[in-house]
Amino acid sequence: MLTLLDHIGVFVFAISGMLTAADRNLDILGGYIIAFITALGGGTLRDLLLNVDIAWMGSVVQVSMVVAGGTFGILFRSFLKKLRRTFFIFDTIGLAIFTIIGVQKGMAYEHFGLTVIFLGMISATFGGLTRDVLCNEIPLIFRKEIYAIPFLTSGSIYLLGDYLGYASHLWMLWVCILIIILFRTFAVVFSWELPLIREISKWNS
Amino acid sequence: MLTLLDHIGVFVFAISGMLTAADRNLDILGGYIIAFITALGGGTLRDLLLNVDIAWMGSVVQVSMVVAGGTFGILFRSFLKKLRRTFFIFDTIGLAIFTIIGVQKGMAYEHFGLTVIFLGMISATFGGLTRDVLCNEIPLIFRKEIYAIPFLTSGSIYLLGDYLGYASHLWMLWVCILIIILFRTFAVVFSWELPLIREISKWNS
Amino acid sequence: MLTLLDHIGVFVFAISGMLTAADRNLDILGGYIIAFITALGGGTLRDLLLNVDIAWMGSVVQVSMVVAGGTFGILFRSFLKKLRRTFFIFDTIGLAIFTIIGVQKGMAYEHFGLTVIFLGMISATFGGLTRDVLCNEIPLIFRKEIYAIPFLTSGSIYLLGDYLGYASHLWMLWVCILIIILFRTFAVVFSWELPLIREISKWNS
Repeated sequence: MLTLLDHIGVFVFAISGMLTAADRNLDILGGYIIAFITALGGGTLRDLLLNVDIAWMGSVVQVSMVVAGGTFGILFRSFLKKLRRTFFIFDTIGLAIFTIIGVQKGMAYEHFGLTVIFLGMISATFGGLTRDVLCNEIPLIFRKEIYAIPFLTSGSIYLLGDYLGYASHLWMLWVCILIIILFRTFAVVFSWELPLIREISKWNS
Repeated sequence: MLTLLDHIGVFVFAISGMLTAADRNLDILGGYIIAFITALGGGTLRDLLLNVDIAWMGSVVQVSMVVAGGTFGILFRSFLKKLRRTFFIFDTIGLAIFTIIGVQKGMAYEHFGLTVIFLGMISATFGGLTRDVLCNEIPLIFRKEIYAIPFLTSGSIYLLGDYLGYASHLWMLWVCILIIILFRTFAVVFSWELPLIREISKWNS
Repeated sequence: MLTLLDHIGVFVFAISGMLTAADRNLDILGGYIIAFITALGGGTLRDLLLNVDIAWMGSVVQVSMVVAGGTFGILFRSFLKKLRRTFFIFDTIGLAIFTIIGVQKGMAYEHFGLTVIFLGMISATFGGLTRDVLCNEIPLIFRKEIYAIPFLTSGSIYLLGDYLGYASHLWMLWVCILIIILFRTFAVVFSWELPLIREISKWNS
C-alpha cells in the first residue's frame, strides 16, 4: 500500500516539477531534470543523512515514474492548469506520503524523535527546495510561511501513534494525510501566516 | 589509460572553473574553491549516490591536479582566452571522460541501465551546475538546451558496448569521446536546440 | 572539553543563522531552518565526504542546541545587535572549533594532509555558504575575500602539531583559536584583502 502511494507521490511531484520548468520556459531535457530533482531530491537527502543506499538507485519503477510523470505533464499541461484544485490535493497527498515514509525510515534506523520528524519534513520538502534554488528563486518554503508546519505536525502524530502501537494500522496513514490536506486547505482559505522573527523580537525589546 | 585521462579531465575542469571565477571578479582563494568544485563536484555526487567512499578523498594526485589546473588558469589566462577552440576540445574530452567513468562505476556496482546513464550525466555535469548555482546564475545546463544530450547518448552507447562485450576495448572510449566532440561542435555550428516544453504542450491543446 | 566547545559552536552558529534570517524578514519556522543549516551544514558535508554516520543524527544535544540557539536569537535580538564585538569573538571561536573538529575527524580516518585541511575548512564554512545560497546571495566567502585564509592556516598548524606529537595538548587548540581570532580582527582593522585573479593574470601578460 505505502509502496503504491510512494510511486503515486513520485509521479505527482514529477508532474509538478515539469509544470514549474515550463513556466520558466525551459526545454524538455531541462524539464525532465527538474522533474527528477523535485520527485527524488527529498528521498536522496533523507538516505544520505541516514547513510544508507539511495532508494531510487535500485528501483527501476521509481525512475520510470519520473519519466512517466514528466511526460504526462508535457502532454496535458493546459488540461492540468484547469484542474488546479484536484492537482493541489494530489500534490498534498504526495507530500503526506513522503513525510510518512521519511518518519518510518528514520524509526527503522532507530533515531530519536526530533531527528525522525526532521527526516519526515526533509523528505517532503527538499525536492521542491532544490528546484527553487536551481531556478534561482528564494525557496517557496521560506516565503510561504505556513508551508512546513503540517509536515511537522503530521510527522509528530505518526511518531506518537507508533509509540502507542498503532503504526501498523492503515488508518494512521490516512489520518496523517487528512491532517496535511485540511491544514493546507485552511491555510490557503483563511490566509494563515506564521509570525515574523522581527515581530516576536519586538515584543521583548 | 582511463586514470591518466581522468587526471587530465580534472586538470582541464579546474582551469575552466578558475577562468569562470576570474570573469566574476573573485579573488584567488575564491578561484581555487570554484576550480575545486567544478573539477570534483560531479565525482563527489556520483560517489555519494553510489554510497561508496569519495574517490578524490583518498587521492593526492586528484587534489594536486586541481591546484595545478587552477594555477595554470591564473598564469596563462590571456593566452587561454585566445585558444578558445583548443580549450573547447579539451573541455569536451574532460566531459566525455567523466561520463564514461560515471557509467563504468555505476556498472561496477551493478545498477540497472537507466540509472547508470544518469550517473554518467551527473558525473559530467554536476560540477559545472554547482559552480553556476554558487555564482548565482541559472545553471548553463538549463539555458543552453542541447548541453546534456551527448552525455546521455554516449553513456548509452558505452552501456550497449558493454552488453556486447566491447567494454574492455580502448576504441570504445574513443568512439564515445568522438561522439561528444562531434555532437557539441555540430550543436554550436548549426545552432541545434531542443524544443521548449511550452511548444510541445501547444501541439496537444 | 572539545565536545563542550562543539556544543557552544553549534549554539553560536544557530544564533547567527537566526539573526541573518530576521534581516531577510523570514518567519520563525524559516528562521529555525536557516539556524539549523548554518549550525549543522558544515558537519553534515564533512561526514558525507568521510562516508561515516552524520554526527548530529545520533545526538539529542546537538539538535537541542540549535533550537536553544535559535530561540535565544529571537528573544535577545536587539540586545545581540548592540553586542556586535562580543558576538564576533564567539562566532570566531565557533569557526575555530569547527575547523579543529574537521581536521581531527579527517586525521582519525587517516586521510592525507591536504584533504584533512580542506575538511577543516569545509566544516567551518559550508553552513554559512549554504545559508547564503538559500537566501539567494553570492556566498560571503566569495565576496569577503580574506574569509577562509585563517581556517587553512590554523588547520595546517593543528596538523603540524599532530605530527610533532602535541595534538593531545589542550593549548594546541587555544593556539589555533587565537590565530583565527587575531587574523580575523587584523583583517577587519587593516582591511586585508586577497589579490584578484585578474590582477595576478595581468602581471603575466
